[in-house]
Amino acid sequence: MIVVVKKEHEEKQLENLIDWIKGLGLEVHESRGENSIILGLIGDTTKVDIDLLYSLDIVDTVKRIQEPYKDANRKFHPEDTIVDVKGHKFGGGHFQLIAGPCSIESEEQMIAVARAVKDAGANLLRGGAFKPRTSPYAFQGLREHGLDLLIKAGREVGLPVVTEIMSVKHIDLFRDVDVIQIGARNMQNFELLKEVGKLQKPILLKRGLANTIEEWLMSAEYIMSEGNKEVILCERGIRTFESYTRNTLDLSAIPLLKELTHLPIIVDPSHASGLSRLVEPLSMASVGAGADGLMIEVHNNPKCALCDGAQSLRPEQFEEVVKKIDVILPLVNKTRK
Amino acid sequence: MIVVVKKEHEEKQLENLIDWIKGLGLEVHESRGENSIILGLIGDTTKVDIDLLYSLDIVDTVKRIQEPYKDANRKFHPEDTIVDVKGHKFGGGHFQLIAGPCSIESEEQMIAVARAVKDAGANLLRGGAFKPRTSPYAFQGLREHGLDLLIKAGREVGLPVVTEIMSVKHIDLFRDVDVIQIGARNMQNFELLKEVGKLQKPILLKRGLANTIEEWLMSAEYIMSEGNKEVILCERGIRTFESYTRNTLDLSAIPLLKELTHLPIIVDPSHASGLSRLVEPLSMASVGAGADGLMIEVHNNPKCALCDGAQSLRPEQFEEVVKKIDVILPLVNKTRK
Amino acid sequence: MIVVVKKEHEEKQLENLIDWIKGLGLEVHESRGENSIILGLIGDTTKVDIDLLYSLDIVDTVKRIQEPYKDANRKFHPEDTIVDVKGHKFGGGHFQLIAGPCSIESEEQMIAVARAVKDAGANLLRGGAFKPRTSPYAFQGLREHGLDLLIKAGREVGLPVVTEIMSVKHIDLFRDVDVIQIGARNMQNFELLKEVGKLQKPILLKRGLANTIEEWLMSAEYIMSEGNKEVILCERGIRTFESYTRNTLDLSAIPLLKELTHLPIIVDPSHASGLSRLVEPLSMASVGAGADGLMIEVHNNPKCALCDGAQSLRPEQFEEVVKKIDVILPLVNKTRK
Amino acid sequence: MIVVVKKEHEEKQLENLIDWIKGLGLEVHESRGENSIILGLIGDTTKVDIDLLYSLDIVDTVKRIQEPYKDANRKFHPEDTIVDVKGHKFGGGHFQLIAGPCSIESEEQMIAVARAVKDAGANLLRGGAFKPRTSPYAFQGLREHGLDLLIKAGREVGLPVVTEIMSVKHIDLFRDVDVIQIGARNMQNFELLKEVGKLQKPILLKRGLANTIEEWLMSAEYIMSEGNKEVILCERGIRTFESYTRNTLDLSAIPLLKELTHLPIIVDPSHASGLSRLVEPLSMASVGAGADGLMIEVHNNPKCALCDGAQSLRPEQFEEVVKKIDVILPLVNKTRK
Repeated sequence: MIVVVKKEHEEKQLENLIDWIKGLGLEVHESRGENSIILGLIGDTTKVDIDLLYSLDIVDTVKRIQEPYKDANRKFHPEDTIVDVKGHKFGGGHFQLIAGPCSIESEEQMIAVARAVKDAGANLLRGGAFKPRTSPYAFQGLREHGLDLLIKAGREVGLPVVTEIMSVKHIDLFRDVDVIQIGARNMQNFELLKEVGKLQKPILLKRGLANTIEEWLMSAEYIMSEGNKEVILCERGIRTFESYTRNTLDLSAIPLLKELTHLPIIVDPSHASGLSRLVEPLSMASVGAGADGLMIEVHNNPKCALCDGAQSLRPEQFEEVVKKIDVILPLVNKTRK
Repeated sequence: MIVVVKKEHEEKQLENLIDWIKGLGLEVHESRGENSIILGLIGDTTKVDIDLLYSLDIVDTVKRIQEPYKDANRKFHPEDTIVDVKGHKFGGGHFQLIAGPCSIESEEQMIAVARAVKDAGANLLRGGAFKPRTSPYAFQGLREHGLDLLIKAGREVGLPVVTEIMSVKHIDLFRDVDVIQIGARNMQNFELLKEVGKLQKPILLKRGLANTIEEWLMSAEYIMSEGNKEVILCERGIRTFESYTRNTLDLSAIPLLKELTHLPIIVDPSHASGLSRLVEPLSMASVGAGADGLMIEVHNNPKCALCDGAQSLRPEQFEEVVKKIDVILPLVNKTRK
Repeated sequence: MIVVVKKEHEEKQLENLIDWIKGLGLEVHESRGENSIILGLIGDTTKVDIDLLYSLDIVDTVKRIQEPYKDANRKFHPEDTIVDVKGHKFGGGHFQLIAGPCSIESEEQMIAVARAVKDAGANLLRGGAFKPRTSPYAFQGLREHGLDLLIKAGREVGLPVVTEIMSVKHIDLFRDVDVIQIGARNMQNFELLKEVGKLQKPILLKRGLANTIEEWLMSAEYIMSEGNKEVILCERGIRTFESYTRNTLDLSAIPLLKELTHLPIIVDPSHASGLSRLVEPLSMASVGAGADGLMIEVHNNPKCALCDGAQSLRPEQFEEVVKKIDVILPLVNKTRK
Repeated sequence: MIVVVKKEHEEKQLENLIDWIKGLGLEVHESRGENSIILGLIGDTTKVDIDLLYSLDIVDTVKRIQEPYKDANRKFHPEDTIVDVKGHKFGGGHFQLIAGPCSIESEEQMIAVARAVKDAGANLLRGGAFKPRTSPYAFQGLREHGLDLLIKAGREVGLPVVTEIMSVKHIDLFRDVDVIQIGARNMQNFELLKEVGKLQKPILLKRGLANTIEEWLMSAEYIMSEGNKEVILCERGIRTFESYTRNTLDLSAIPLLKELTHLPIIVDPSHASGLSRLVEPLSMASVGAGADGLMIEVHNNPKCALCDGAQSLRPEQFEEVVKKIDVILPLVNKTRK
């Protein structure tokens, strides 16, 4: 961490600052320039409150050199983390396909979709039981009942299940869910992150609508610092001024995250665009960019979906996507095994 | 709501669509143009799933005409809502000042700040007990103990208190808090919104980092649709590409919200900029733009704040701000009484 | 175009509005609802001033249904436009590689790079002669002399050349340039667009830093409406709150543009990220998303580049990229011939 | 400037880097930490190419400490620059009002508006002759003829005139214009900036749609480095995800710019929102935030404006705004004299 001290300062103030920094167990290196003094803070600076330093009268600016996350940082864990969900591995060259409907509607629907996506190559089954909807008047999901239907369908066809949690109050209900998803709107619901950090279960952490890569990794750090190291990151688009698509999928984030963290990273091309006809090109693009998996909405009857039908593929379209990405996977040294 | 149907469509599909819309209790008006057919949906369209319509093959585009919120909509409630907190009124020409430290640290601190801000003109006391921090390693607040200190200080000096809730699990702890704040990161924590909607207590709803005005009003609608009509909106800056300030304060939102909703709207200039020296000019700007109140961070010892000290004013600086806004208030037909 | 008229209006005002619209040669269809009257404007609405309509007292809102561009619109030109640059075709299933250094530095450099990129598979040579730099103190390019060196190198090795123009004053200097590039910062330099629209030469139009897809197509329309139909669009990243990369590459734009327009669309992965190690994954992603070409910075000595070295590949790295995209091209029905 | 060198590096590479930096006339201070080496570059770093440094294999990151602008930097020119336009002063406590129509339409219109705004308190007359329009089919302004009408009206009523230039080719036409405006879309038209930098005439430099404060000051630096020191900055809103207003007015920029630069800064509340009913509240907010002037669109017949009528005030509305800001000006130590 670098602290730039203003030219006009009292020596006493500077001494106090240096003493305070040393009190945190850090070393201080000083460089005196013409217009400012630069202090280099050496040691573990993750616990230094950058806002506090910044508030001091004599401080001009503060710049972090070291990343503020540790458990999620590739510098300290050079090997890829491999998250294993009942034998299906994410990361370390393994690529997985998660598929299923946006909303869980009925037992028949779930079992039909589960069979169809399994046949087309999916390794995990997804489905929304608790639905985060902008409007209180929109369908909020089948909730507890939806969870039951999802788990039942997963067991029936032999696919582990992934679904979103929306409240710390519901944690017990998710005991038989294989991967718990934290949605974009809850990426900084810190109390929820702490609670899922206490579980022994993989967590799929979606990127927030307007969150930086660093904030995203800090949310992973919240989960990991409580003991749960099985975090899968999921890019799903960020909010920009462009209004043609619902969100702007940020595929540069994938190769960048591969440098910054050892955690697996997948992409959700369905929610990113909100348009089913963009799912195939964005899926291929995601694989080309180096993703460790895809989460795709597939429905057996898109016209009648209770929500978000616009972004769902039919099973045969999903199968077409799988065939194409199978050609790209070897180029990025990945396998669907 | 307007549904534009593609030129190339089968008549049967169009008939089905029109029947489905009529089944929702809406009337349909048809305009046939050269390149498309425009359907005008007349009636209460708040419950129509716009994504579903959009997903249909024959639909080119869908545009909402009517706002999707009702309880928060000025069209249906032309009179200003006045939220009364122990005699301190927000809205309807009444202007309130909320002040206090970012974090609650000790009993002495809270009582000292409470006295200072009351003397300087504040009507409500704020203070952070549960702190939403990006890093799990940063100070998370005194939590339950902090709530006690805040309430005690408020009672001691005679100021109602405002503080942030971060989890549905903590609702019982907030029983003696006068105004419950929903922070920016929880603006779309829908389960929390529903829970506070069941309380009989004013809710201060901050705008999310990257949320539109419409989404913000939909979150107010979540609270109101559960029965709690006492919502105060609080603008606190949105996320943009500009990195000099922490957020970009969106003051155009104030006069716009005055048209769209009957709810009171206040501004938090401290969090918006993250810089204490911007609080005075942004406070004056907010009052000029028509805000119904301000929430300002005041600390008796900014250098030692445990967090966010950079954005806190000293009591004498706060007093200076109050004097200046008192000159502007009559121009916008508002009073601090 | 849809005009929503407020419930409270005088009949005389509405009549005047309808007469004015009809005076523009448009038909008007009226739908009367409970809370508003909806006017559907039928005909060529590209010339209607939407802001003017919006300014009228009785108008609640105005929504465009038809796209405001015509020459660039796929609805009116369903077939792909193929831009042919000395036998190298963009669009219609043809894929091209443009490569070369960020800045032109010397004759030796240009000829060496030109040979290297040609050997690696490039079809066109790029190089910056006039450089748009944020700082007046940064290297501004070799300007006229740079153009000469570029053209000479192109002729020597047999590659058509692409380079950026920055002023209407320089148009004569570009007479021997094969493709004129309009940079992101000049995407809405309308006087420049009109001038290049009068030429008989392909124009490579980069997307502006913060421009929507619609605005981009309107800039293409500026060029096309002056008579020059040979426009190649180039996505190069948009500005968002994410600061890790210089820009956020918007790959969703590619399949969307394929629907909206018949013009070829290529991607510049070098400028988008500003990091050479992201060029390979983003190139593969771009091809997967359906791009008709790539423009990649290649340098024979990246360490000594006078500018933007951070984003340049070495020739052998570029060759590696070419090999990988050759595997993906058949999946998207494209060929490098 | 701080250069962080990676832990894994060859000593020879580091030596080369240090020699290269010293070759630029800078001193280098070294701090060796556990995970990295920090180099502090002391001296005039405005000419160091940050991208080049960043491209070196051994460099982890580079952070600028000193601002990259000099002529515009308050550190080197602590006193406010006062730009004097025929006796009307901007900056140094002086506040000016610029008013007039969006587009110049006819001699009668211009003289009528000029009289009306002068009577209401305006000190300068504005009007658009060359109009930057997104669509080639929209009204492009009366161009040369518009300039004549504007200058004639200004002379007739005794107001200096302000109008926008769109091309380096038009510079001679602007010889009798008192203040030349560079519009948002041309803020980084560097060739145009250099040309107006050679004039002896005040330049009104609008902020680009998606430009940071630093880039804006770098564009001012382009003008100033050519010799013209009379630059007035004009905030007009930036592009964000919020779609309710055309742009988000960034009023935090005003107090920040007051710290960073000595140049006067005004606000254009008409273009920012695009809605005339927001002009009054945003004007008051701008004055409260510390602006040195306002540029407001006023029309004598808003319904018939050829463009942008939605954002124009009537003269009597403008007069009302002037009365209100006159109450606020003393609070910010400014005077309209």
